[in-house]
Amino acid sequence: MRSVVTVTPNPALDLTTRLELLTPGAVNRVREAQEDPGGKGINVAGFLSSQGAPVPVVATGWLGEANAAGFRAFLSASGIADRFLPVPGSTRTNVKIVEDDERVTDLNFPGFAVDAAAEAALLQALREAAAEAGWVALCGSLPKGASPDLHARLLAEARRAGAKVLLDASGAPFAAGLAAGPDCIKPNGEELGALLGERIEGVADAVAAIGKVQARGVRTVIVSLGAEGAVFAEGDKRVHAVGRPRVLRSTVGAGDAMVAGWLMGGLRGLDLAERARLATAFSLGALSTFGPRLPDAAEIASLANAVEVEALPDAA
Amino acid sequence: MRSVVTVTPNPALDLTTRLELLTPGAVNRVREAQEDPGGKGINVAGFLSSQGAPVPVVATGWLGEANAAGFRAFLSASGIADRFLPVPGSTRTNVKIVEDDERVTDLNFPGFAVDAAAEAALLQALREAAAEAGWVALCGSLPKGASPDLHARLLAEARRAGAKVLLDASGAPFAAGLAAGPDCIKPNGEELGALLGERIEGVADAVAAIGKVQARGVRTVIVSLGAEGAVFAEGDKRVHAVGRPRVLRSTVGAGDAMVAGWLMGGLRGLDLAERARLATAFSLGALSTFGPRLPDAAEIASLANAVEVEALPDAA
Repeated sequence: MRSVVTVTPNPALDLTTRLELLTPGAVNRVREAQEDPGGKGINVAGFLSSQGAPVPVVATGWLGEANAAGFRAFLSASGIADRFLPVPGSTRTNVKIVEDDERVTDLNFPGFAVDAAAEAALLQALREAAAEAGWVALCGSLPKGASPDLHARLLAEARRAGAKVLLDASGAPFAAGLAAGPDCIKPNGEELGALLGERIEGVADAVAAIGKVQARGVRTVIVSLGAEGAVFAEGDKRVHAVGRPRVLRSTVGAGDAMVAGWLMGGLRGLDLAERARLATAFSLGALSTFGPRLPDAAEIASLANAVEVEALPDAA
Repeated sequence: MRSVVTVTPNPALDLTTRLELLTPGAVNRVREAQEDPGGKGINVAGFLSSQGAPVPVVATGWLGEANAAGFRAFLSASGIADRFLPVPGSTRTNVKIVEDDERVTDLNFPGFAVDAAAEAALLQALREAAAEAGWVALCGSLPKGASPDLHARLLAEARRAGAKVLLDASGAPFAAGLAAGPDCIKPNGEELGALLGERIEGVADAVAAIGKVQARGVRTVIVSLGAEGAVFAEGDKRVHAVGRPRVLRSTVGAGDAMVAGWLMGGLRGLDLAERARLATAFSLGALSTFGPRLPDAAEIASLANAVEVEALPDAA
């Protein structure tokens, strides 16, 4: 069966630290630190793999040589085929400083830069991986030095190899990738609003916006709306799915979990409503864990049972 | 010629970040980040190697597997023989957040832990390295899980192999190592004061304290006193050396540079006064750079010329 390939051009090492109180100007002793290899495509691959995807899961992109070991250990331990390409320097680190009163301070580091040779190598790596892929998921931001249209070029390679393409990005890389016509996108309301230059605040806004991006040639559009759930549109069909998290621990990876759940639903041959249900359950599952993790498959199934899915009117 | 071996049981990755203003509770974008593989023994080895040590420089200790790559790349690029042993987990990171007004906030992370098997492996690695060594420098703190007397056990291995031993540590590991009778120690006034339970605030205090530790069997004692320079005692001879930094950029590694300069002076066959001069010049050189670095050999020679060395009365 054809694999799922995720592409993460700009991964991040999420370093969550806990301490009593952050005192600027002083020496602060971190009580506890947890490193999570992150980045949207790595999260999607990890979620698919941890929930027993019935096909090979492959991850590619770039990793800074200096701190690649943790990423590679994670991919290997997760049973994900590691096709990441090394580049000089470090993958960016995002430090999250969590104080005992739950105040959170973020320190976001710059990461590696890439050049034309690195881009050529990534396009080649994707060409090879996509030859055996059913879906390619192009995920997240681009590192310094990357061509603004990198997602579009990756998309063209994936399609030429016969794979379908999901694009999950924001800002300029999203707009540039969208121009190349992906099969599926999953913006949140804010990202889609920024793209269209309008405010998207609820289900009705999302449905209207979906029509506009489908008119650009995208068949499947998923718009996540936070506590209001998500609208899933495939061709002229639309459903709205919403659930409640049993416990809210961290929003890290919730959007990526929705992407993974949607792809998993496809691998299981589910229809639109049931795929929306599963994607929503994945996302709720990610909310209930610290860091980019999912609960076990039984808990995901239980969450899925509680998701409310309603059909919306077909597009005109 | 016999090598110099440095042992760093608990290295640190020094991550210096620069940003405009650190705002707790907000997302702070780091403008610039510099990673320096650190730890006292790694610094000593790096300084010796960068100043053209006439013998092989060997470094051992433990490195957490997850972030070892930067350390290994540094050792390799510096021409240092890398005998570090991998252990599960990450080497601790010390994040230094430098704001544009030069306020500095430190975030010190916990690191890996070691077990008895890791200790046995390190003792074995040191046994092998020390067989070809003239000097072994035991440097710095111990990781979680290490025996409190690890420096003493390493010292015994080094001595059995025929090497002399320099101990540069503080607190309980210093006290435990000292009990095993190293050939040389280099505490600062504060560390030596903590050991003896007294205040050491200037040259006269240092001279008095030196007598007390020499009575415990340590032939060579170097006590650094910050802006007041350092007292160097070998047997009953004592000198005081002091100089001024041309520019003060960071104190990181200044004590380690003094150790390296002292060892280098020995490799060059210098007498006590000239070794004290060179050690002080190394230390002043480290003050003039950001991070654990030395200026070039010509600048070190120029700094050495300006160091004032005075003989103090012999011990009674």
